[in-house]
Amino acid sequence: MSQSLRGKTVLASGFDAPARGEIRRFEQLLIILDDAGVIQETHAEGSARYEQLLSHARQAGDLVAQPAGTYLLPGFVDLHIHAPQYPQLGSALDQPLDVWLKTYTFPLEAKYRDEAFAERAYGILIEDLIASGTTTALYFGTIHPAANRILADKCLEKGQRALIGKVAMDHKELCPPEYRDASVDEALAGTQDLIDYITRHPDNSENRVKPVVTPRFIPACTDELLGELGQLAGAHNCHIQTHASEGDWEHNHVLDRHGMSDTESLDRFGLLREHTVLAHGNFLSLVDMERIKTRKAAVAHCPLSNAYFADAIFPLAVALEKGVRVGLGTDISAGPSSSLANSLRSSLWSGRLLESGTDPAMAPGERSSRAGQRIGMHTAFHLATAGGAEALGLPVGSFQPGMIFDAILVDPEAKAAPIRLWQDLYGGDEILEKLLYGVTRANIAQVWIGAELCAGEAV
Amino acid sequence: MSQSLRGKTVLASGFDAPARGEIRRFEQLLIILDDAGVIQETHAEGSARYEQLLSHARQAGDLVAQPAGTYLLPGFVDLHIHAPQYPQLGSALDQPLDVWLKTYTFPLEAKYRDEAFAERAYGILIEDLIASGTTTALYFGTIHPAANRILADKCLEKGQRALIGKVAMDHKELCPPEYRDASVDEALAGTQDLIDYITRHPDNSENRVKPVVTPRFIPACTDELLGELGQLAGAHNCHIQTHASEGDWEHNHVLDRHGMSDTESLDRFGLLREHTVLAHGNFLSLVDMERIKTRKAAVAHCPLSNAYFADAIFPLAVALEKGVRVGLGTDISAGPSSSLANSLRSSLWSGRLLESGTDPAMAPGERSSRAGQRIGMHTAFHLATAGGAEALGLPVGSFQPGMIFDAILVDPEAKAAPIRLWQDLYGGDEILEKLLYGVTRANIAQVWIGAELCAGEAV
Ligand SMILES: [Zn+2]
Ligand SMILES: [Zn+2]
Repeated sequence: MSQSLRGKTVLASGFDAPARGEIRRFEQLLIILDDAGVIQETHAEGSARYEQLLSHARQAGDLVAQPAGTYLLPGFVDLHIHAPQYPQLGSALDQPLDVWLKTYTFPLEAKYRDEAFAERAYGILIEDLIASGTTTALYFGTIHPAANRILADKCLEKGQRALIGKVAMDHKELCPPEYRDASVDEALAGTQDLIDYITRHPDNSENRVKPVVTPRFIPACTDELLGELGQLAGAHNCHIQTHASEGDWEHNHVLDRHGMSDTESLDRFGLLREHTVLAHGNFLSLVDMERIKTRKAAVAHCPLSNAYFADAIFPLAVALEKGVRVGLGTDISAGPSSSLANSLRSSLWSGRLLESGTDPAMAPGERSSRAGQRIGMHTAFHLATAGGAEALGLPVGSFQPGMIFDAILVDPEAKAAPIRLWQDLYGGDEILEKLLYGVTRANIAQVWIGAELCAGEAV
Repeated sequence: MSQSLRGKTVLASGFDAPARGEIRRFEQLLIILDDAGVIQETHAEGSARYEQLLSHARQAGDLVAQPAGTYLLPGFVDLHIHAPQYPQLGSALDQPLDVWLKTYTFPLEAKYRDEAFAERAYGILIEDLIASGTTTALYFGTIHPAANRILADKCLEKGQRALIGKVAMDHKELCPPEYRDASVDEALAGTQDLIDYITRHPDNSENRVKPVVTPRFIPACTDELLGELGQLAGAHNCHIQTHASEGDWEHNHVLDRHGMSDTESLDRFGLLREHTVLAHGNFLSLVDMERIKTRKAAVAHCPLSNAYFADAIFPLAVALEKGVRVGLGTDISAGPSSSLANSLRSSLWSGRLLESGTDPAMAPGERSSRAGQRIGMHTAFHLATAGGAEALGLPVGSFQPGMIFDAILVDPEAKAAPIRLWQDLYGGDEILEKLLYGVTRANIAQVWIGAELCAGEAV
């Protein structure tokens, strides 16, 4: 796909949420892009400058006006994806965790030693994610250096903004023999290999793809490996991702082994830094949250997978109140949907169920110990876009000047799956709410990353 | 749309779940339909009779073979829809219940005094539901006789199998003055009007549409009205629907007013009969469940709306274990999705969260008092199809001989929203699981009701 908006002026209506609690609705906004796809200026209708820029762009043939009835939104940022698990999306979820892991997940990840399989599977994954509106993805790869390089190649080929980690897992008791790093050195070499490959990649001059130091989670790694990975991340000033305090078992395992929480333990290994992303965090204490905030790290909240494998819901509202950076994740494939819009919707019902509890046999005040846990669509939309971008420290996620133009065009009238807006009855933020409750892949008409068209038909 | 499968022989692959716990996978099944759209015989590949019938149908030009790679499933049965609330689907859900009701829902329902509005809104609703695979719908209408007649007309026009109730609500303290029945007589007259209209409708010779006696819920009705409605239902041997034991407030309100549970109270008014459908039922006791089972009534489980407005999740597994009939509902628009596939998916995560609880600050055993509450895809698929049909006493929901052919054709390769099956890696029930986790409206290529094509392109 070749249509590029670089150097163009875009005329569009839509929404963004650059700051939490603030939804911005814009109509016929002029968005002026430079040759690198960065937003230079935006202008709302009504000023002399607006008319001047509009007619100038028109005359120069640089104006790209989006069709009436469509809505421009920032692209989605997905903070937690296990790239190799995509083939099993939506299957094996009736299985208990240990069967899911040992019979399905680890054997599937192990398949990526086959480069042809990696090539095929990663190609489909990335196309599907872009088409579903995910313009930035934070990926766990596998243990295999070659497959991880292929994942980076595919992101660059298809244009997705991506952060990719070689999964490091060397613990002999807790990783299966057929799928683990044979040694600390092997895990480090694979990590270094991916860092070098991505940073020197000839097609990566814009740094659209970045490497991530990725211990799978504390139980899967020896202390030696954790320490070395912390040093490596520090030396390269790399992003870091891992799982933290997801479930009862895992949380208690780390308490037993290290005598402290995941967060504290990761911190002493140098693994809790600015833009470290901790997946899940359901069992984070307030002290853990304070530490995460201080380090400017972030949490990837994966509400749908919480229901399947965490036996609890991440206290999102508590974390936000404390000032912790949070974004949303699909957790492919412990979450059965690849659509970040589904994660966004799930953050709404899961907040309510955390607040209320679920068990009607318990008294209302005893079903949950927490009040005020629900979030609104304003917050969910922010987390899915600018919030996720902030967690990663990337200049995307809104249409403010200085941001790179990563955006999706939502067509509520897509014939395959119309979203009914009833604009004679509903307006303003209700339109955004209806769009976000209703949007499916079929409604995502176009997707731009770095102002380049990466999915949808060129107009 | 005119293509009909009546009198034809269908050749298709797919799944059904006629009994709970049993998934049937079929490949190249021959389904022989009579002139009324009823399944006469089905034959699996491999017998002499199969070959004979296949070649006979081919010669007679009566064979309709579904395209390779598509899957035939029974149509979905949605046991709880507020038809008039469709325009607000996916909006106002950040509001507290009283604002949602008083500022949004009641004023919207009141709009249906305008017949032109009813005509427009109901037309869109029914088209959207059919296109999303809902072949049978149990509807709450409004208080307005004319609008309810229009709803019946539209179902007959578009071919949807439907059960429709005039909402009866006459309680002066608990219904808003601008939207309630002025008297018991008015409520009864409107109910009788709809019964007569539907049973005598010239286009309803097959009884595709049926009337339903529909007290909104006990708090909205006077005792006199409840008693009269029970008598009316008995006299006409009508279906009945209402809400029961949904939330803490409502459940306790009935305990205070009647000194007994909703279920017991409905029963003494003659409103708990075979095929009465109680929406929600989150706070049903085991005694209530026993009573519902004895009466052969049923529960419409609406998992997604439970999260928004019930502060608890219906103990589905308990009810099934007890032998209560249960089906699924979207609860448009307290649930933000019109897709019964979303209700099906929600029944999976909600069962898990009922089992585990949600609050990580509570100990694992204290987050919920219940074990064994999760259900599997087998059960969810049954509830969404044959289970719902059984609750209503309708001969649909599976491909067994004697059933009317209500079916959907799922195309996993729909360009707008492909479902990735990875058939080299996954097979059998995993295919069904992937289809049901992935299916959106864009994948529903064709929908037949009574063997007549009601959505999708004729091939
Ligand atoms: Zn994960
Ligand atoms: Zn309802």
